[in-house]
Amino acid sequence: MPALITYRTPVQEDWVDYNGHLRDAYYLLIFSYATDALMERIGLDADSRGQSGHSLFTLEAHINYLHEVKLGTEVWVQTQIIGFDQKRLHLYHSLHRSDIGEALAASEQMLLHVNLAGPKSTPFSEMSVQTMQQLLHQQDDLPTPAFSGRVMKIPT
Amino acid sequence: MPALITYRTPVQEDWVDYNGHLRDAYYLLIFSYATDALMERIGLDADSRGQSGHSLFTLEAHINYLHEVKLGTEVWVQTQIIGFDQKRLHLYHSLHRSDIGEALAASEQMLLHVNLAGPKSTPFSEMSVQTMQQLLHQQDDLPTPAFSGRVMKIPT
Repeated sequence: MPALITYRTPVQEDWVDYNGHLRDAYYLLIFSYATDALMERIGLDADSRGQSGHSLFTLEAHINYLHEVKLGTEVWVQTQIIGFDQKRLHLYHSLHRSDIGEALAASEQMLLHVNLAGPKSTPFSEMSVQTMQQLLHQQDDLPTPAFSGRVMKIPT
Repeated sequence: MPALITYRTPVQEDWVDYNGHLRDAYYLLIFSYATDALMERIGLDADSRGQSGHSLFTLEAHINYLHEVKLGTEVWVQTQIIGFDQKRLHLYHSLHRSDIGEALAASEQMLLHVNLAGPKSTPFSEMSVQTMQQLLHQQDDLPTPAFSGRVMKIPT
């Protein structure tokens, strides 16, 4: 299976700096929308969230900036599930555009399944677990994410 | 010396999700504005950037989300320099509000000094190096950043 495409957008005017380049925080906004789209796939769409009171909170995100991206460029996000347990989802997003093979940016994220009444952490539904298991299985043949498990430091 | 406060803002309407909570990417936007403010302190304000053509690019950012933050909350960013070399600046931001002692979020970041003509990496000016050295020295007695050097993984 090819990587799952979760989100697609042109780079918008509100997102760029004085140089017309996508500002660092807005790469993460695009990945945030991609996470929303993944939530819909695993049964946490807006309707279900309203009914169940369940959602995903971001615990931690790591992002690597690999290329500049200009206003108006059409970009998309590919998403891989690295792993999950009863309450946590560990995933990997990468940002792409059509005329360049390498990723423009990559982000490893840890999300927590919560009951908004509290809020407190709560186990995923059986349906969510099955869908995540399927996605994980379909992605068996994808390469290991290049920018995961990294520690940040100045090279010596 | 107390920690350096680099940025202060109320949480704005554009930054919150359907629940009225600050969205994950907008924590990073607040930290991005704090980095802009730090740039001004080390001689990379908009005027100097215009003249020298030098700026900072974010290479990598790691962010930990520790508390929810609601619309309208007044927050501020404290910034510590973890280290720097000829071309790289390794820093640590934390987000705070007045009625809670712990940080609301923390972000470790690696920035690269670049000449926008290229763009290509280029050494910091002598003035930037001296200012960063002073800031580093003033922060000698601050505790080691709690959320730095982390590897992301699901606990086993």
